[in-house]
Amino acid sequence: MSSSFGRFLTITTFGESHGPAVGVILDGCPPGIAVTPEVVQRDLDRRRPGQSAITTQRKEPDKVEILSGVFEGVTTGASIALVVRSVDARPADYSNLKDLFRPGHADYTYWMKYGVRDYRGSGRSSGRETVGRVAAGAIARVILDGIGARVQAYTVQVGGITALRRDLAVAEQNSVRCPDPDAAAEMERAILAAREAGDSLGGVVEIRADGIPVGLGDPVMDKLEASLAWGLMSIGAVKGFEVGDGFAAAGHRGSEMNDRMTREGFASNHAGGILGGISTGEPILCRIAVKPPSSIAIPQKTVDTEGQERDFAITGRHDPCLCPRVVPVAEAMTCLTLADALLRQRAIEPWRPKHA
Amino acid sequence: MSSSFGRFLTITTFGESHGPAVGVILDGCPPGIAVTPEVVQRDLDRRRPGQSAITTQRKEPDKVEILSGVFEGVTTGASIALVVRSVDARPADYSNLKDLFRPGHADYTYWMKYGVRDYRGSGRSSGRETVGRVAAGAIARVILDGIGARVQAYTVQVGGITALRRDLAVAEQNSVRCPDPDAAAEMERAILAAREAGDSLGGVVEIRADGIPVGLGDPVMDKLEASLAWGLMSIGAVKGFEVGDGFAAAGHRGSEMNDRMTREGFASNHAGGILGGISTGEPILCRIAVKPPSSIAIPQKTVDTEGQERDFAITGRHDPCLCPRVVPVAEAMTCLTLADALLRQRAIEPWRPKHA
Amino acid sequence: MSSSFGRFLTITTFGESHGPAVGVILDGCPPGIAVTPEVVQRDLDRRRPGQSAITTQRKEPDKVEILSGVFEGVTTGASIALVVRSVDARPADYSNLKDLFRPGHADYTYWMKYGVRDYRGSGRSSGRETVGRVAAGAIARVILDGIGARVQAYTVQVGGITALRRDLAVAEQNSVRCPDPDAAAEMERAILAAREAGDSLGGVVEIRADGIPVGLGDPVMDKLEASLAWGLMSIGAVKGFEVGDGFAAAGHRGSEMNDRMTREGFASNHAGGILGGISTGEPILCRIAVKPPSSIAIPQKTVDTEGQERDFAITGRHDPCLCPRVVPVAEAMTCLTLADALLRQRAIEPWRPKHA
Amino acid sequence: MSSSFGRFLTITTFGESHGPAVGVILDGCPPGIAVTPEVVQRDLDRRRPGQSAITTQRKEPDKVEILSGVFEGVTTGASIALVVRSVDARPADYSNLKDLFRPGHADYTYWMKYGVRDYRGSGRSSGRETVGRVAAGAIARVILDGIGARVQAYTVQVGGITALRRDLAVAEQNSVRCPDPDAAAEMERAILAAREAGDSLGGVVEIRADGIPVGLGDPVMDKLEASLAWGLMSIGAVKGFEVGDGFAAAGHRGSEMNDRMTREGFASNHAGGILGGISTGEPILCRIAVKPPSSIAIPQKTVDTEGQERDFAITGRHDPCLCPRVVPVAEAMTCLTLADALLRQRAIEPWRPKHA
Repeated sequence: MSSSFGRFLTITTFGESHGPAVGVILDGCPPGIAVTPEVVQRDLDRRRPGQSAITTQRKEPDKVEILSGVFEGVTTGASIALVVRSVDARPADYSNLKDLFRPGHADYTYWMKYGVRDYRGSGRSSGRETVGRVAAGAIARVILDGIGARVQAYTVQVGGITALRRDLAVAEQNSVRCPDPDAAAEMERAILAAREAGDSLGGVVEIRADGIPVGLGDPVMDKLEASLAWGLMSIGAVKGFEVGDGFAAAGHRGSEMNDRMTREGFASNHAGGILGGISTGEPILCRIAVKPPSSIAIPQKTVDTEGQERDFAITGRHDPCLCPRVVPVAEAMTCLTLADALLRQRAIEPWRPKHA
Repeated sequence: MSSSFGRFLTITTFGESHGPAVGVILDGCPPGIAVTPEVVQRDLDRRRPGQSAITTQRKEPDKVEILSGVFEGVTTGASIALVVRSVDARPADYSNLKDLFRPGHADYTYWMKYGVRDYRGSGRSSGRETVGRVAAGAIARVILDGIGARVQAYTVQVGGITALRRDLAVAEQNSVRCPDPDAAAEMERAILAAREAGDSLGGVVEIRADGIPVGLGDPVMDKLEASLAWGLMSIGAVKGFEVGDGFAAAGHRGSEMNDRMTREGFASNHAGGILGGISTGEPILCRIAVKPPSSIAIPQKTVDTEGQERDFAITGRHDPCLCPRVVPVAEAMTCLTLADALLRQRAIEPWRPKHA
Repeated sequence: MSSSFGRFLTITTFGESHGPAVGVILDGCPPGIAVTPEVVQRDLDRRRPGQSAITTQRKEPDKVEILSGVFEGVTTGASIALVVRSVDARPADYSNLKDLFRPGHADYTYWMKYGVRDYRGSGRSSGRETVGRVAAGAIARVILDGIGARVQAYTVQVGGITALRRDLAVAEQNSVRCPDPDAAAEMERAILAAREAGDSLGGVVEIRADGIPVGLGDPVMDKLEASLAWGLMSIGAVKGFEVGDGFAAAGHRGSEMNDRMTREGFASNHAGGILGGISTGEPILCRIAVKPPSSIAIPQKTVDTEGQERDFAITGRHDPCLCPRVVPVAEAMTCLTLADALLRQRAIEPWRPKHA
Repeated sequence: MSSSFGRFLTITTFGESHGPAVGVILDGCPPGIAVTPEVVQRDLDRRRPGQSAITTQRKEPDKVEILSGVFEGVTTGASIALVVRSVDARPADYSNLKDLFRPGHADYTYWMKYGVRDYRGSGRSSGRETVGRVAAGAIARVILDGIGARVQAYTVQVGGITALRRDLAVAEQNSVRCPDPDAAAEMERAILAAREAGDSLGGVVEIRADGIPVGLGDPVMDKLEASLAWGLMSIGAVKGFEVGDGFAAAGHRGSEMNDRMTREGFASNHAGGILGGISTGEPILCRIAVKPPSSIAIPQKTVDTEGQERDFAITGRHDPCLCPRVVPVAEAMTCLTLADALLRQRAIEPWRPKHA
């Protein structure tokens, strides 16, 4: 089991849903990056549960502590440990699920893979694991800030409702994190209705990176889109990834998809900012499909560890739609991927022949 | 730039489109696997250009030579080098494109990233790079055969035409590699028409793995779907990846998506055979979006390395639709990913607590 | 900067000498390993400062907390975070050294490499960093226990005094951790005398692993001796590594060095339990050279960050000889290396052709 | 089994002693490095067998072919495949050893580890495997040349004879590659006498790197000395590694070992050019212990795969002392390690705070 991501700039996360703490070690961070607990906290606060009526009501302050790697306000080049204590863990809530395999959850697969299972609120496969990702991603974001790059994710679809506008400034102003205020209101209503019905909704989150210079991404196996896909598909509940026109490209012709280059640059961006695995300098655009949460209040049937069929209902505190909470996690994985690619490019830069 | 994929079972590929050879080193392969040149050749022949009217007419026998790691018909545990000489390389065909940035190609990004560019037929970013993947994948396939697992990819969409059936036995009997013979005929006509028009078509390839035992995939960062996404998105021209219901899941409710477990096993497979990053024992199902080839005969406009606008037309030998040729490559990356996951699971198996 | 070691069983450490905490994430640990805080504490207690008159008098309880990966007394397969809070940190002790480059220390090289330096007691390059190694090593030790293997390190040389006996049972009964009680007494006196003189002593630590089965170690780049060398040379103050006859082998003839095989097994063990990078089943024996600590009370001369020559004396709490404290660290790195090799061998085991 | 070395600049080697070819893929090489077959051949020629009376008489031209990654005389950033065909392979020479475990060889351990063994001249564990290392190392050397760094290895001990001078210019002028011409003559005589007696000799090779800037090496797990130890201990027959004063440091006092810094730089170099795992700017100095070759003509006893005791004698073409042939391999591994460290440092360089 590997809890690490990245080649040069590497994160290794730890922690279970109802264990004492979750966190991360970020290794390979360059020295001299200005990092304070506040910088990390800002992103953690966006990921935190209980921010609105449409997220889980678990109360976690998610207060980060920086244990190493930062001295007098800047990174030292040493590994950076970031830890968040859990205060509202309620492992007992799960004792009735202890020997059940909840549908859509990893209960059965963990049980079969490891022969042992931390049944407290999904254990390691809980969304709480993403605290470490977001904390480390906040530092990767500072690295990107330094070159004028900016990463933002936002919800573009919930259930059957699709955002028609991309007014990024408003995305953080509604509980769904949708850049189309009208769609946002509709999405909120749909999510509340689904929860009311004891059910849940899926959606699509889009990620946009501006200011990424041309040249990031290592062709062949570490194409930038492949690294982004790896990072984003490693977020629980994500079932699909696409870049640029993505699946729509399958229905297009080459003459439509090719982004023409002019003296002023690219005339379009069907490619989503990546060609041959390398960033083009255009905005990087990708989307991920987020499944509806498996924890629903509607009574369900399943089997238990003895193979017996069982009726059960989930009563804990759960998100009726994951999109708003996936947003900061998707940003974190994107920031980490891009900062890693940036370091890799810097490694070869001094040898790059300069054009006349 | 990294040309390696996999953690335990690793491939490292090399070679440019019009260089002397392409190939791969497969490292970490267990000993005792029966491997002959024929086993590797079988998959290479399926990838080979010039197999039908709808692929490029470049003539390459793609004859593999095993340089190491196999002795008396079985793998020894040593690294396995597989090399294929190029015989129909025509680098001169590309001299007129030498200083042009072809739209949709990696010309510009390589130029900017490396300051130097092998302009001969896309150089390293050519589809010819996949020879090494397919050769190594053939050995991974033998490993999977040994546990009764089987991986097959096939075209399910070309342009606007969608396969309605999944008759896998017929997929290899038509030039599009489509499991629906009626759709296949229609797809072929569409591809030929597109080529006639100097244009190209995109499509969707589906990959199915049967017989994969429960328990493969390492949760968190190396979720099985994340590794598959990494591997499949690293294939040139792939713009999207999804597993199970994928993007369609975004429009569903939890009560619809949750695959119920019964005494007989899973009652459905919306998850695509993976829960929490770990295989469930159900068939693994994923799909990739393949963009229309960028090399089209229609005259195009672009800029050159001096920033001057230029008219040009591509005259080489090109594929009007990549799907049939992506099929064996997608199988290779899937076989490599699954065999890697299998080895990882075997590493911890002796310690796994056995259920009573 | 990389703080990770191991391929399958991986540790990533964090923490500075006078920061709030030090620790480690152990990833890739198989499930079902019995781990309690006591198991980890036992090894930490052996590494702890202030155990005898010949070690630093810094008072650290080094109490470990297990933050993840262990549930109901066994590992779950998830990453295991182990954290130790520092309670006797005295960063102010170092303010007078802030802009000095202490001879033999990493002050100058960190300063030049990173442009920034955590000057509090050597920061990241402090011996305190090894807390994480020892904590993780304790779990690797449990894995090895399970196959009946046992790793022990001990001091065999201090200054000019050499242990003539290998009575391993007594090694932990004296403050030098020497398996020869007479030499131990002499070594102790020499260390105290050196400290009295404001100076310090070097030495040699030997590591012995019994019960390691034949077949561990991956030939070529990951030869078992190469992995051991990597791990042991990564411990601060270690200046040399040898396996079996080591440097003495340079003076021998092939006819003397070749360990003859008989029906009963190997007739000798000049190889130190490794042939061709793979364990032979004989005891693994290696030795490391430990330099005298650079922190000495004798007044010294150096330069500061402005390039000015400066007189100074180190007054903190320091070890006059590192050997006794390197012993548990060397065991930890050896346990981690061997457990990693064990997992790697288990990964290919099911495919290994069985001899008739 | 891993055949890879390096983190950013990575080699993966392949090939058996009597297989069709040996070689390497070098990945991560920056673009724009001037590489020709001649540059690689120069180092291969120094490694080649049959160069003098004191090496094996196997006749291999070891002619390298560059299959990828180099275009118009410079590296492109793509993976570089280098292949050498074997022409004087005589696998039949080994058929009588097929079921024997030669003492000091890896026959038994491979057999037990893999259940299968390429018995032709040690197969993968042959010294011939080092062809790939030397070929790739030649390119790493060009990278180091570019910053004015120079790596040279040479024999400083054979049997009981020790070089007293370090006249590096003469090292390549005698068959032992010793920088002391008088000792060289004596060593040659000793080697010939040992061969005459059907025996073999061990020795010590020293490696010196000049012009390495301060700041290379990643502290903690990837200390420069740890990476060098990993690389050099992965060469067959190497039984020990030390840096700077090495094992002699064990007998010294801190006041003797500490290299004083003055306004003019370091006043001594007991550390061997590395402090805290980071290069100091002083020459890097390390030594490796090379065991006497196990292939000796003196009749020996051993057991076979059936456990029967057997008398046998080795009659092939073998080196009576490995030192002169280890020299170019040690240089290669050192060049690769240092070039890798250089790339890693370049990756963080743009962020390094500059001193006032």
